[in-house]
Amino acid sequence: MKKIVLLRHGESIWNKENRFTGWTDVGLSPHGMEEARKAGELLAAEGYDFDLAFTSLLKRAIRTLDFALEALDRSWIPVEKDWRLNERHYGALQGLNKAETAAKFGDEQVHVWRRSYDTPPPALDENDERHPSRDRRYAGLSASELPRTECLKDTVERVVPYWTKMIAPAIASGQRVLVAAHGNSLRALVKHLDGVGDDEIVGLNIPTAAPLVYELDDHLKPLRHYYLGDAEAIAKAAAAVANQGKAR
Amino acid sequence: MKKIVLLRHGESIWNKENRFTGWTDVGLSPHGMEEARKAGELLAAEGYDFDLAFTSLLKRAIRTLDFALEALDRSWIPVEKDWRLNERHYGALQGLNKAETAAKFGDEQVHVWRRSYDTPPPALDENDERHPSRDRRYAGLSASELPRTECLKDTVERVVPYWTKMIAPAIASGQRVLVAAHGNSLRALVKHLDGVGDDEIVGLNIPTAAPLVYELDDHLKPLRHYYLGDAEAIAKAAAAVANQGKAR
Repeated sequence: MKKIVLLRHGESIWNKENRFTGWTDVGLSPHGMEEARKAGELLAAEGYDFDLAFTSLLKRAIRTLDFALEALDRSWIPVEKDWRLNERHYGALQGLNKAETAAKFGDEQVHVWRRSYDTPPPALDENDERHPSRDRRYAGLSASELPRTECLKDTVERVVPYWTKMIAPAIASGQRVLVAAHGNSLRALVKHLDGVGDDEIVGLNIPTAAPLVYELDDHLKPLRHYYLGDAEAIAKAAAAVANQGKAR
Repeated sequence: MKKIVLLRHGESIWNKENRFTGWTDVGLSPHGMEEARKAGELLAAEGYDFDLAFTSLLKRAIRTLDFALEALDRSWIPVEKDWRLNERHYGALQGLNKAETAAKFGDEQVHVWRRSYDTPPPALDENDERHPSRDRRYAGLSASELPRTECLKDTVERVVPYWTKMIAPAIASGQRVLVAAHGNSLRALVKHLDGVGDDEIVGLNIPTAAPLVYELDDHLKPLRHYYLGDAEAIAKAAAAVANQGKAR
């Protein structure tokens, strides 16, 4: 039996401000750093150990991994960073406050953008300073790879090949893998692993910094999955994520 | 003209306690974390940027790199970690207080172990719990690679091949490289780059967390080198390192 642990980054500065983040590279809040440390301590206390870690090119996930690995005393393991594990690109909504956006476009439209499987938010203009072609870290990507916006379907379509090419072979070879990523890139993985339907996956809320363990058979098919830690706190955290897009 | 920046890790808990560290995996002191952050801020202020970083398998160097990259807003660049950049292995002296060791064996003997080019300290016994074969991170090394002690010559003999095979090709291909490592693995690099003599290199003291810039020609031969930051403070820090082994 093999295992993989998925970890959504701790609270970022913008989670706190309730803004659409996407590929905006915002840091962890002090609370988020603490969450990340605690996730590492929890994994260590439960006897987890790792040989290899994967993360995105966004610092809230990278730093979450750093803090967790430090708590695990595994800062020395190799870490692969890849844009394919980035958060869903939120297009022209990036930087906007979620409640303000809801007040402007209506709860329903924002809900569609947040929770429809295949309707992307408005795309960034090519000249927009937020366009990823202006960010050196994406210099290796082809023009067709560079997103101007993404629906969850688009995110799935870039995450799954990375799973297949990079993560799955590492697990199959016996390496114990930790993935520190984002709400939607982890949704994409979970959808692929569990074969979750398009309508269902958009309602799945993964709480921040709660280690999500998948037990896999030799063909990397999931046997079962569970969160480590206090179940009630995790349910509360997931509900808080679900409510962020409401105008109130 | 190409450049490489070498960075010795910030103060560790054992630097502070004045103990022989070697491959013992001790963390940074709060002051060391601050030094690392400041090194990153200094590099950023001087307009430095990086595409790739190398570090050891020891957390005081890895975390120094993490903090520096965070200050540079470059947490996303690839980081290669390798045992060949580890500190010199200090054999059976690892864990002993430098002043106590000097009081026991005499200033002269300790000076020889610290500063002779080719006289290693007493070797670890195969059964010693400090032997690197007991540490999972070195599982990929052959028995002949695993040191039980090292003189600086031994350190040079493992660092230089890593330079030649991994670091030099990256610089030659145009990548801007940062190396976060240790007093003796950096001495080994400096010896190789500048062709410093065996007797001379042992007297070279590299201060903690002061970015050391090498300007290189197209054949990676050094044109000149210099530290970034306040020259007086750097000289003082280097002298402090030189005096650590005295019994007083």
